[in-house]
Amino acid sequence: MTIILGLDPGLAATGWGVIRSEGNRLSHLAHGTVKTPAAAPLAERLGALYDGLKAVIGAHGASEAAVEEVFVNVNPQSTLKLGQARGVVLLAATRAGLAVTEYSTRSVKKAITGTGAAQKQQVQAMVERLLPGLKITGADAADALAVAITHAHLRGRPQ
Amino acid sequence: MTIILGLDPGLAATGWGVIRSEGNRLSHLAHGTVKTPAAAPLAERLGALYDGLKAVIGAHGASEAAVEEVFVNVNPQSTLKLGQARGVVLLAATRAGLAVTEYSTRSVKKAITGTGAAQKQQVQAMVERLLPGLKITGADAADALAVAITHAHLRGRPQ
Repeated sequence: MTIILGLDPGLAATGWGVIRSEGNRLSHLAHGTVKTPAAAPLAERLGALYDGLKAVIGAHGASEAAVEEVFVNVNPQSTLKLGQARGVVLLAATRAGLAVTEYSTRSVKKAITGTGAAQKQQVQAMVERLLPGLKITGADAADALAVAITHAHLRGRPQ
Repeated sequence: MTIILGLDPGLAATGWGVIRSEGNRLSHLAHGTVKTPAAAPLAERLGALYDGLKAVIGAHGASEAAVEEVFVNVNPQSTLKLGQARGVVLLAATRAGLAVTEYSTRSVKKAITGTGAAQKQQVQAMVERLLPGLKITGADAADALAVAITHAHLRGRPQ
């Protein structure tokens, strides 16, 4: 039995989702979004993100984390912003003792829907099907649950 | 009297420099580079960077930090990598209780040499002139000292 934390990093909002994986049975434990105040200085926002994730990890006791490799934006300022949040997300997970694995967007889509070219809505619909009883609130959390499920499927296999 | 930590973030190597500012007198206290092992997974490298900076801050007791706003590379992967390191650098400084201020490359060059269009070598030569007795080892640390000096000049003034 493994508790997996999926993370979808962003400076304004980082989605997270926690699932339990037992054999080939998956179940949803919790999901949500850590938001940071847009008006605050960058260092403070990163601090709030770190603290928020620390609280989430502490509350749900995951032992492994999965993070999607980010879409590299054409806008360098957006990429930089995202990178800063992503660095803090990876740090929070590793500092909490979680083993961190990264997955490309393509491999997440393929693991969830069978095709690396799937649409976002298709991925979200499959996440709800794969985690019975789940009603997702928010696209960030849906992406986080998708990468958590991907990890449940692919962990232990050579990438 | 203020102890200022200047930081030049990078994933492979983050330069740091500590100066003392007293009235309009500056003196050099220490400088160096925190390096992370290129072969390690990203989350581990970010952890090593965080720990390295924590140790530097603990050893030198700065109360304020200055970080250069990074050059946004044309290569999005480089920008992302730099962003991840930069997020961890900002977090390490703010978590250690330091007030963090960011300066554009242009304002650093202008504060050190009088012109925002100065060459790197000119900046480094002026850093050595402004901090008597200093012999800089490494370009990253030179940039870190330059932004620390910039902060000593500009702190308390509206940007």
